[in-house]
Amino acid sequence: MSVIKPPKGFKLSVTEAAIKAPGRKDLALIYCEDEATLAATYTTNKVKAAPVLMDMVRTRLGKARAVVVNSGNANACTGEQGMKAAMQTASELSTHLGVPEENVLVCSTGVIGVQMPMQRLKPALKPLAKGIGSADVMDFARSIMTTDTFPKIAETTLKVGKAEGRIVGVCKGAGMIEPNMATMLCFIMTDLEVERDALKSAFNMAVDASFNRITVDGERSTNDTAMVLASGAAGNDTIRTGSVAHKRLAEALFDVMWKLSRMIVEDGEGATKIVEVEVDGATSDKQALQAAKAIANSLLVKTAIYGADPNWGRIISAVGASGVNMKEEAVDIYIGKVKIASKGLATGKLDAAASEMKKKDIKIRVSLNIGKGSARVLTCDLTEKYIKINAEYTT
Amino acid sequence: MSVIKPPKGFKLSVTEAAIKAPGRKDLALIYCEDEATLAATYTTNKVKAAPVLMDMVRTRLGKARAVVVNSGNANACTGEQGMKAAMQTASELSTHLGVPEENVLVCSTGVIGVQMPMQRLKPALKPLAKGIGSADVMDFARSIMTTDTFPKIAETTLKVGKAEGRIVGVCKGAGMIEPNMATMLCFIMTDLEVERDALKSAFNMAVDASFNRITVDGERSTNDTAMVLASGAAGNDTIRTGSVAHKRLAEALFDVMWKLSRMIVEDGEGATKIVEVEVDGATSDKQALQAAKAIANSLLVKTAIYGADPNWGRIISAVGASGVNMKEEAVDIYIGKVKIASKGLATGKLDAAASEMKKKDIKIRVSLNIGKGSARVLTCDLTEKYIKINAEYTT
Repeated sequence: MSVIKPPKGFKLSVTEAAIKAPGRKDLALIYCEDEATLAATYTTNKVKAAPVLMDMVRTRLGKARAVVVNSGNANACTGEQGMKAAMQTASELSTHLGVPEENVLVCSTGVIGVQMPMQRLKPALKPLAKGIGSADVMDFARSIMTTDTFPKIAETTLKVGKAEGRIVGVCKGAGMIEPNMATMLCFIMTDLEVERDALKSAFNMAVDASFNRITVDGERSTNDTAMVLASGAAGNDTIRTGSVAHKRLAEALFDVMWKLSRMIVEDGEGATKIVEVEVDGATSDKQALQAAKAIANSLLVKTAIYGADPNWGRIISAVGASGVNMKEEAVDIYIGKVKIASKGLATGKLDAAASEMKKKDIKIRVSLNIGKGSARVLTCDLTEKYIKINAEYTT
Repeated sequence: MSVIKPPKGFKLSVTEAAIKAPGRKDLALIYCEDEATLAATYTTNKVKAAPVLMDMVRTRLGKARAVVVNSGNANACTGEQGMKAAMQTASELSTHLGVPEENVLVCSTGVIGVQMPMQRLKPALKPLAKGIGSADVMDFARSIMTTDTFPKIAETTLKVGKAEGRIVGVCKGAGMIEPNMATMLCFIMTDLEVERDALKSAFNMAVDASFNRITVDGERSTNDTAMVLASGAAGNDTIRTGSVAHKRLAEALFDVMWKLSRMIVEDGEGATKIVEVEVDGATSDKQALQAAKAIANSLLVKTAIYGADPNWGRIISAVGASGVNMKEEAVDIYIGKVKIASKGLATGKLDAAASEMKKKDIKIRVSLNIGKGSARVLTCDLTEKYIKINAEYTT
């Protein structure tokens, strides 16, 4: 892959703080040359990591000058000491960078319930600040990985008037992933100039249609964060709420986030297949989403997918157990293009469905045929390797 | 194990119908010499197997003369043809036994979405009827197994006045198990004489405190059934609602069902450990149950248990994601007798907790310390073997 530079107005840096174990870059920085407009969303888990709580407050200011990210320690369930660690990290870094403390955000991912090793993190902040501009997007993406097996980057461009802006997204996440955010950190940088509320609404729409529609294991973490930073360095006319450019911004953000979402699912711990679950004909979009999530989170469906078994009985049973409105005798189920069940009964096309199931990229569609609601969710299969990774790894 | 006979008033029979594959007994019968009083509960899945729908109607009559059980085919998602098969099975058997058709119940467990092979089942009904009295409880328990690795039987006795009654329970189930019933079939026979409403209420209380408190994989099947049959052959004074005997009956039923519940979890597909999850100090019992189920169904908790990793961060994160009322800074977590987290913070007793985690029988207790609600749920760990079984087996 060729070198990917951040959009104009951003500079990156990475370093090694040996937070969990020495030998890899585990501290990364996004530096905004000027104030960047900020929008972000955080985990809905009631147990929130210290940096998440701090960032939620600072996000209200709508501006950021720097985001520092560490892997190896989540700084979650660490009480007062953990909160002091997050604040101190931001404070020290703000001094080194010469930016206001309240415009520095901190993101952490890794083990829960262990205090942040400040004796190792603190000395690394100065070289981190000094190194701004020395890292590219790939360096940044690598340094925020935990159980990820590959770095996750997506980008697009958006023309606004005569100016062309770039949107570059980086994320991490492979387990503890479910709709409503997960141990997922996502950073989106754009050099477009966007009015704050317009950025916020476009960002929220895109998150809801992408990261909130994926599930690896139905788990929701204490540290989930997705944020977008807009530097305004592209020189475009400010994008405002309700404009055509605003709508296209939301689409461009969705485009980047959807690609990143697929990468997360593809990298789902131990996953061998990526599965798109679509439910239509439900009595509402909400009902469709509930059914799609139930299918995507069913261990029996996920193991059947792993075994390439077109076991539609497990699919319809998951829908039945989900509590949504349904009529068994109205349900059609498709695996790829093969209709495996029609009006709640087997069509007998087992062989054709089985060969669809052998693909790496699988599509399951359930038509409830009682309404007009639809939803789409991405997931992966569940394999022995997921078990192995999570039985051995201390998150 | 010595021969276990059914309680007075019941006769058992088993035979081979080669429903899925030849070579094992897959058809079993409970014959009631006289009308037995009946109470039963069925799956809450909206997709219900044909025999479940039929039995739900017949259960309203409150009486049974025979229950026929087949393994190898669930007769679920089989439409009109499946319903005819269930009714025909009951009808033919009623002729062979000389009992009213509406007092014959049918239970099925096995693959979903495949029509019942009536050409093999039908000819087996006559020898099944002829064989009444030739099978013992162990034969019956073995013939209803699917992925179970051992037959599940529990019994107790109950003195009512001078008469002593027996309560003998048999069940099957190893996967697709979650609170609110699962691919679990449970048959309880007692020779006690019990007034119908008294039997129903005692039975429901016991089911709620036992089978509705276990989870293997969070799946709820299309065929779950638990029933109790009371023959009245013990010669006791009829047990009526509100009496002391009624209360003791509920306790005795719970005793049998709790033992069976533990066996199901112990036999959870691929399980190596049995885990009791207790949540107390919640704002209500319902909230406690919600939190306990969230912990018990968390893939990350279940894999940590498998890996003997005292990873309390995953436990508190599961509680936080469950949506129950909680204050992170009030939470205490115990693994066995070891307090691993106090007021939301690590106590550092990792080694002691790790050795508790190495046991086969593990207890996790989470004290939310904000109220008086409590609940207990049984579960097992999640292993590579669960994946293997369910990737290869077509349910």
